[in-house]
Amino acid sequence: MRQSTLFTKTRKNAPADETSKNAEYLIRAGYIYKEMSGVYTILPLGLKVVQKISNIIRNEMNAVGGVEMQSTTLQSKEVWDKTRWSDDVVENWFKTKLKNDTEIGLAFTHEEPMTAMMKNFIHSYKDLPVYPYDVRTIFRNEMRAKSGIMRGREFFWKALYSFSKNKVEHDEFYEKITQAYKNIFNHVGLGDKTYFTFASGGTFSKYSHEFQTVCNAGEDLIYLNEEKCIAVNKEVYNDEVLKDLDLNKSDLKEVNAVEVGNIFSLGYKFSEPLELNYKNAEGVEEFVFMGSYGIGITRLMGTIVEVLADGKGIVWPESVAPFKVHLVLLGEDVEVKNKAEDLYNNLIAKNVEVLFDDRVGLSAGEKFADADLLGMPWRLVVSKRSLEAGGFEIKARNDEAGRIVTENELMSLIS
Amino acid sequence: MRQSTLFTKTRKNAPADETSKNAEYLIRAGYIYKEMSGVYTILPLGLKVVQKISNIIRNEMNAVGGVEMQSTTLQSKEVWDKTRWSDDVVENWFKTKLKNDTEIGLAFTHEEPMTAMMKNFIHSYKDLPVYPYDVRTIFRNEMRAKSGIMRGREFFWKALYSFSKNKVEHDEFYEKITQAYKNIFNHVGLGDKTYFTFASGGTFSKYSHEFQTVCNAGEDLIYLNEEKCIAVNKEVYNDEVLKDLDLNKSDLKEVNAVEVGNIFSLGYKFSEPLELNYKNAEGVEEFVFMGSYGIGITRLMGTIVEVLADGKGIVWPESVAPFKVHLVLLGEDVEVKNKAEDLYNNLIAKNVEVLFDDRVGLSAGEKFADADLLGMPWRLVVSKRSLEAGGFEIKARNDEAGRIVTENELMSLIS
Repeated sequence: MRQSTLFTKTRKNAPADETSKNAEYLIRAGYIYKEMSGVYTILPLGLKVVQKISNIIRNEMNAVGGVEMQSTTLQSKEVWDKTRWSDDVVENWFKTKLKNDTEIGLAFTHEEPMTAMMKNFIHSYKDLPVYPYDVRTIFRNEMRAKSGIMRGREFFWKALYSFSKNKVEHDEFYEKITQAYKNIFNHVGLGDKTYFTFASGGTFSKYSHEFQTVCNAGEDLIYLNEEKCIAVNKEVYNDEVLKDLDLNKSDLKEVNAVEVGNIFSLGYKFSEPLELNYKNAEGVEEFVFMGSYGIGITRLMGTIVEVLADGKGIVWPESVAPFKVHLVLLGEDVEVKNKAEDLYNNLIAKNVEVLFDDRVGLSAGEKFADADLLGMPWRLVVSKRSLEAGGFEIKARNDEAGRIVTENELMSLIS
Repeated sequence: MRQSTLFTKTRKNAPADETSKNAEYLIRAGYIYKEMSGVYTILPLGLKVVQKISNIIRNEMNAVGGVEMQSTTLQSKEVWDKTRWSDDVVENWFKTKLKNDTEIGLAFTHEEPMTAMMKNFIHSYKDLPVYPYDVRTIFRNEMRAKSGIMRGREFFWKALYSFSKNKVEHDEFYEKITQAYKNIFNHVGLGDKTYFTFASGGTFSKYSHEFQTVCNAGEDLIYLNEEKCIAVNKEVYNDEVLKDLDLNKSDLKEVNAVEVGNIFSLGYKFSEPLELNYKNAEGVEEFVFMGSYGIGITRLMGTIVEVLADGKGIVWPESVAPFKVHLVLLGEDVEVKNKAEDLYNNLIAKNVEVLFDDRVGLSAGEKFADADLLGMPWRLVVSKRSLEAGGFEIKARNDEAGRIVTENELMSLIS
């Protein structure tokens, strides 16, 4: 993509009320735009990141048997009445009304509508297990929203709901999706900072599990055993739990962390009140055993920025970067410009994703500052000086200095 | 995809209150699920259709310079106050409130937020033209919603907004996107029934233009000149307009139609009140000249069903079908089953999209009825009889009878 055709621009400053690093950098670089507190437009470069993260998640969900669908934002009160419609139970509902004054809700999750819908499709043990999932926008009426895209009033997530015959079948899937989650956080570049964390369970399970990424801006406190690669959320940090998990206080480190994913055994919590049952192989009616599994996609994007950015801007891992290469043309010399244009076309022909800074009237310093702020993995400079030195200057975003490569060397390095 | 792993099932009947053909078939076939009137969950097969239509639209939008982004659902009152916040102006707003009692709206369109946002990015004539677009969910609080997914309270659309230096630049783009829209409706199989239609304009243009698909279930009345391939919407059907367009009443046919797309010259309607201006080449401030261009994606899906379905079910054009081939295995014979499994794997290896009806315990009649209802372009039967006759029976959805082909013949026909 030519930077000259991109309507967004880098900014010197984020809005004054924006205190989080992720929002500051993402706004300044033109990835997102703030509509109101906790509500951000995803700009073209940001959408590319959201799509890359979403597709990494989709691949892992499909691999464990997930089937993608798209549930609705508008929610029927009837479906929720038996469980969580009351604002005393769920305080961050957004609600609105139809013209005939019927109250409706805006989706903050989908356990209830999924369970109600599945009554149409699940009747026999032959219909189980099934794993529908959603990649969609979620709405939560947060009292405060000060963490940028790490806690939005409107945000993207992936949510999968599992419907199993019984606890044994459920537990097998729970193991599989735990591994799928680990693959996802490894793939997006947060694997070494993300810990499998024990958190509060419910009626049907001792614990739920969170994936917590160690990060100063995190709103959670966890107690981390680095050697065992597990952690305990503050909410269940007590002697009984530590004993149960065979952990010693002295081996644990208190750190701030961001909950980037969670997995939850729901058991019959929703299938019982909403009467989702099936006939087992013996012809006896049983309730379906459920689980739910979330990943905040925009939160993950914000966490990647928080954890990996440096003083100059964002540092995207290659797996989620909007473009692999930021090709920077310096100067107005026609010969240099032609070389840059050729290189741009050759990279595209090799299916390399390139952002081409073809803007005129900017200094080398301005272009380099923008490249650092935008954070593509590779900066590739074409200038009179680079051509005289025998080619193009390539520099990884995290390296201090670049080096000159020929086009052949470049292609074998990049594509 | 194996049909046995798909959690949806076909149904004998749609909900009793569902009167439209599109919703009846789409619900019975398991493409959508009704949450409430005008609000439908998009099930896995339906999501594939939505994605195919969306990608056809994206390709055409990108080709005319469109850049995709993702705007927000939650809308700030401040942005809309100067134009259309009042329910007297827009009667189908959904509105809700933040915890601090601030009123906010749910997106029914995005001219205002787009215009407000562009003030951050458009300053000079060098920044123009730009063409951001959205593929997203839209919310409209319709009094009645009885046309299935052709008029939803929550629905998918594509909306592009054009920002041009002046009317001349705008008109050039308007021509281009008109052609892009024609390409889209051709591509999804509605080209021969979709007419460029003159409708009411605004302060800055005599007419807007709609793309109307002739269809009995359509809510609009248009006056059609088949020879000239244009139509006039009832709302501007009068002597003056007919004279202006050089049309004679006697050559026009009154028909019902569905508005599947519209294009609109907005001029300064939003840039003036929201103060979106730029410095022209002479250094003089001018307002940006705008346009907007919508296509209802779920409406288009519904219209395809309405227009092309027959008495047995849906008939998808290949371009939007969830799968190209519906592979139907008949009987429980192991040898036949193995042949079908091999064929399934071979088709996938050739990148053919296949839905494999591997369900057991259903009669041939039941499987054929489901295949007709689901509407894939090709039905491919593997049975003892087909193997004895020398191969597999292939039948186009619209053909009465199939014919036997060998695997080689099949592959050259299909892939």
